Amino acid sequence: MSSSSTKPLETIFGSKDLAGWRRQVHDILFGDDTRLARIFDVILILIIIGSVIAVMLESVPPINARYHTELYALEWIFTLIFTIEYILRLVCVGKPLQYARSFYGIVDLLAAIPTYFSVILPGIQALLVIRLLRILRVFRVLKLVQYLSEANVLLTALRTSRRKITVFVIAVLTLVTILGSLMYVIESADAGFDSIPRSVYWAIVTLTTVGYGDISPQTPVGQALAALIMIIGYSIIAVPTGIVTAEISRTLKTLPIGCSGCHATNHERDAQYCRKCGASL
Amino acid sequence: MSSSSTKPLETIFGSKDLAGWRRQVHDILFGDDTRLARIFDVILILIIIGSVIAVMLESVPPINARYHTELYALEWIFTLIFTIEYILRLVCVGKPLQYARSFYGIVDLLAAIPTYFSVILPGIQALLVIRLLRILRVFRVLKLVQYLSEANVLLTALRTSRRKITVFVIAVLTLVTILGSLMYVIESADAGFDSIPRSVYWAIVTLTTVGYGDISPQTPVGQALAALIMIIGYSIIAVPTGIVTAEISRTLKTLPIGCSGCHATNHERDAQYCRKCGASL
Amino acid sequence: MSSSSTKPLETIFGSKDLAGWRRQVHDILFGDDTRLARIFDVILILIIIGSVIAVMLESVPPINARYHTELYALEWIFTLIFTIEYILRLVCVGKPLQYARSFYGIVDLLAAIPTYFSVILPGIQALLVIRLLRILRVFRVLKLVQYLSEANVLLTALRTSRRKITVFVIAVLTLVTILGSLMYVIESADAGFDSIPRSVYWAIVTLTTVGYGDISPQTPVGQALAALIMIIGYSIIAVPTGIVTAEISRTLKTLPIGCSGCHATNHERDAQYCRKCGASL
Amino acid sequence: MSSSSTKPLETIFGSKDLAGWRRQVHDILFGDDTRLARIFDVILILIIIGSVIAVMLESVPPINARYHTELYALEWIFTLIFTIEYILRLVCVGKPLQYARSFYGIVDLLAAIPTYFSVILPGIQALLVIRLLRILRVFRVLKLVQYLSEANVLLTALRTSRRKITVFVIAVLTLVTILGSLMYVIESADAGFDSIPRSVYWAIVTLTTVGYGDISPQTPVGQALAALIMIIGYSIIAVPTGIVTAEISRTLKTLPIGCSGCHATNHERDAQYCRKCGASL
Repeated sequence: MSSSSTKPLETIFGSKDLAGWRRQVHDILFGDDTRLARIFDVILILIIIGSVIAVMLESVPPINARYHTELYALEWIFTLIFTIEYILRLVCVGKPLQYARSFYGIVDLLAAIPTYFSVILPGIQALLVIRLLRILRVFRVLKLVQYLSEANVLLTALRTSRRKITVFVIAVLTLVTILGSLMYVIESADAGFDSIPRSVYWAIVTLTTVGYGDISPQTPVGQALAALIMIIGYSIIAVPTGIVTAEISRTLKTLPIGCSGCHATNHERDAQYCRKCGASL
Repeated sequence: MSSSSTKPLETIFGSKDLAGWRRQVHDILFGDDTRLARIFDVILILIIIGSVIAVMLESVPPINARYHTELYALEWIFTLIFTIEYILRLVCVGKPLQYARSFYGIVDLLAAIPTYFSVILPGIQALLVIRLLRILRVFRVLKLVQYLSEANVLLTALRTSRRKITVFVIAVLTLVTILGSLMYVIESADAGFDSIPRSVYWAIVTLTTVGYGDISPQTPVGQALAALIMIIGYSIIAVPTGIVTAEISRTLKTLPIGCSGCHATNHERDAQYCRKCGASL
Repeated sequence: MSSSSTKPLETIFGSKDLAGWRRQVHDILFGDDTRLARIFDVILILIIIGSVIAVMLESVPPINARYHTELYALEWIFTLIFTIEYILRLVCVGKPLQYARSFYGIVDLLAAIPTYFSVILPGIQALLVIRLLRILRVFRVLKLVQYLSEANVLLTALRTSRRKITVFVIAVLTLVTILGSLMYVIESADAGFDSIPRSVYWAIVTLTTVGYGDISPQTPVGQALAALIMIIGYSIIAVPTGIVTAEISRTLKTLPIGCSGCHATNHERDAQYCRKCGASL
Repeated sequence: MSSSSTKPLETIFGSKDLAGWRRQVHDILFGDDTRLARIFDVILILIIIGSVIAVMLESVPPINARYHTELYALEWIFTLIFTIEYILRLVCVGKPLQYARSFYGIVDLLAAIPTYFSVILPGIQALLVIRLLRILRVFRVLKLVQYLSEANVLLTALRTSRRKITVFVIAVLTLVTILGSLMYVIESADAGFDSIPRSVYWAIVTLTTVGYGDISPQTPVGQALAALIMIIGYSIIAVPTGIVTAEISRTLKTLPIGCSGCHATNHERDAQYCRKCGASL
């Protein structure tokens, strides 16, 4: 995500072999260095936010009852704009298939099609809020490089701790399945524990300390087990926190400067010698 | 905030060119080095706490029914005191406009005006609790410098991690909007998911593990998605925690002064000698 | 707490000037080095746990209906035992007043008196669960020194971060008072926001992510403000966590060895020179 | 757990003295280096997942009503497979008793017997979800050594902080007992506080920020105490988090090998050269 935003997009989707109007449209749609391209990006962001608000308002019954025609018209106008934009992007890009398969390409497509499907499946247009993801472009447009580097620290920390978090989530899922089933045996169906999947759902609600209260144990034994699950949940939240904190600490401490000898990065801030090849930094 | 409390206030709002009674009143209202100024500050704090308690009690129906006249009178007495104090501060300060625009100036004004507006808009006087913010002066009065330096560590850590937390909050808001809309499509209006904004509200209630239970999914698919949101919320709370912890650790640990002998940095705050080579810092 | 447990108790309450049977009873009640003293301590712990279970069972209506006489008798027997023990401790200790004012002295007294008060105020005997605090002796008896040193790390971390946590709690209380009052203005009394104290209570329930759901906002504006409070609560939990984590990290990293030159402690684990006086460690 | 998975199992349960078909079956059941053993393991995992899904589906009333016979048959087929497998494992292992007493041996047994008991105690077959634990073998089969080493970091951190977490849990349990009892005295039975155990259950629900809302205080004093419990719970969650984070940080950061040149320790895990003096480690 971040790398595709900082690198010029043409190196990714290739636009060197384009000419004429396609070249110009390409520079407006994908570029960020001309005045026109920036104006286009700002307008696009306003249209995206406007369209998401329209979709949200349409779902509110009293507002929809009053402004149904206007909102319905707006939705189709926004959809047509996004459709034309998507087609233009496909036409003006060097490697259309590569763009269509990229993250932004898929989001651009998903920003338009739900409206067409809503003719067949009413209500599906709620999915249009996915247009929000298009705002990720905002970071590129406004040259918010500093925010991007901050986001990078977080993403790096999350990526490095990916495996540990996977192990943790698998352990949690195994735990809630077993505890939920135990609760299904202990509690009666009247208290809401009428099937194992529902009891597992309750165990997740309890372990994550959400606690809706729509299902809650009624017997002393069930309440004792519930208390145990709560204390487990209250204690093991320390584990993902510990993982991510340790990784962020490490990411913050390390230098982004690479070693001239072996190109190893992430040296500690006070390192004087590369820990990989022993060369002086 | 902290810097304006430790620096003498006259350098901020300028009182050198004042003379006569205005000079004396200025020293009582803004100063903290004369006996009179300290007595005034302590009395002011007691009045603030008293007025906030009066506002709170007035809002409790049975108490209001019984002591309405007394509480109403008290409210106006407190308001008059704060109004006179505010006018005196404006008159006795060197640069009234600068004071009026400062954080304390705005709070001092807001501590008085809601009572006047309550004649037109009944109930608005509840906002008088903003008077509590005036108690921030307590730190200055009681010379709680140590508490201020502790608060400073926290503020520094929060300020340094400001951008990372902004990125995190934007990511969370995008996530809840998309997940909430998905839930609106999946669940029926009977379960409480009757509009996208309301579904997004539910998604925030669930992701932050608050879990009121006034809206809760009823279908198996909805409960599965809810379980996913809970586990995401339970895991990503690690991110703000990790950010702030890493920053506090760094703020607490380090002195930015390097050793002249061996150039080692990050000495502990109270270190007088380099822990690596024993040279004086 | 920990210091009074590891130091011999006689140096605290003075028993050198005792003689005869008082000396012997003293060694059993306060000592931990004779066989008799250890047997006494183990029996005492069993009696404490037994008495707490009896108090808890007595409060359960169906159990109380059936075994009222037995449980009532048990309660008085336990109370008499604790009363005699308390008087013996007072008699056999060198400095009775100092013992009576110490933490254990107060707990020992509170373990007995609620039963006597229950004659006048029925129900007050529930406070007898305070007897649980007497089990803190278990750590001394079983010589669980390692657990004590672990508890010490936690207590040291909490003590060092005391001021920062105070600042945080004051900030949170100010925040919930202002947000709760704002909510009182926005929401109607029908939704449960019928007074400021109750609205502040709701704000605490929401900010701490407990979320009972007995009071929950009904208007769109109220729900938007509630969502804001939730996201604030979800983010600022990072602050106490960050404080305590940073302190525990520091406590774990530092050496308990003091400098021979200046008696400074808490050196970093890899320190070679005292950071206070520059002497070699 | 992890050590028994990475070490060849035969050194644990001894299979050197086996011969003929028992040797071959042993290599398939316990081994992971032949093609047949791997195929067997993958099939076993699919059977385990299938059997757990079957147990869960059987507990859902509408599904059970429709496919009762099929699911009942499936359950017995799965149970027979697991029974045969367990007997084969017992027969083909060098030291059957040692296997039967090991973690995997107990889980293998528990994966089969609930079905037999369900003839006497209907509903007990819900416990069959314990079969999930058998999937821990998946880590061995797929040679997910990296995931195992990540799990090891977590387990090491949890093991090192075991005593501190025990101290914390005991402190929390003492706290909720005393606070719950206090609440029982303050609140009436109508609000749900009808016995001490139930009030303690409520205190756990509140302190861990789960907050079902099935029991919630109604009096002002009770709500004030509840608010106090919430703020305590919101603050002390920092303690387990701090413990685990500090331990994970320490586990992640350090290599216990010192530099031969300058005796600096705590090198990063992938370091080959000392970052202080450049000497080879």
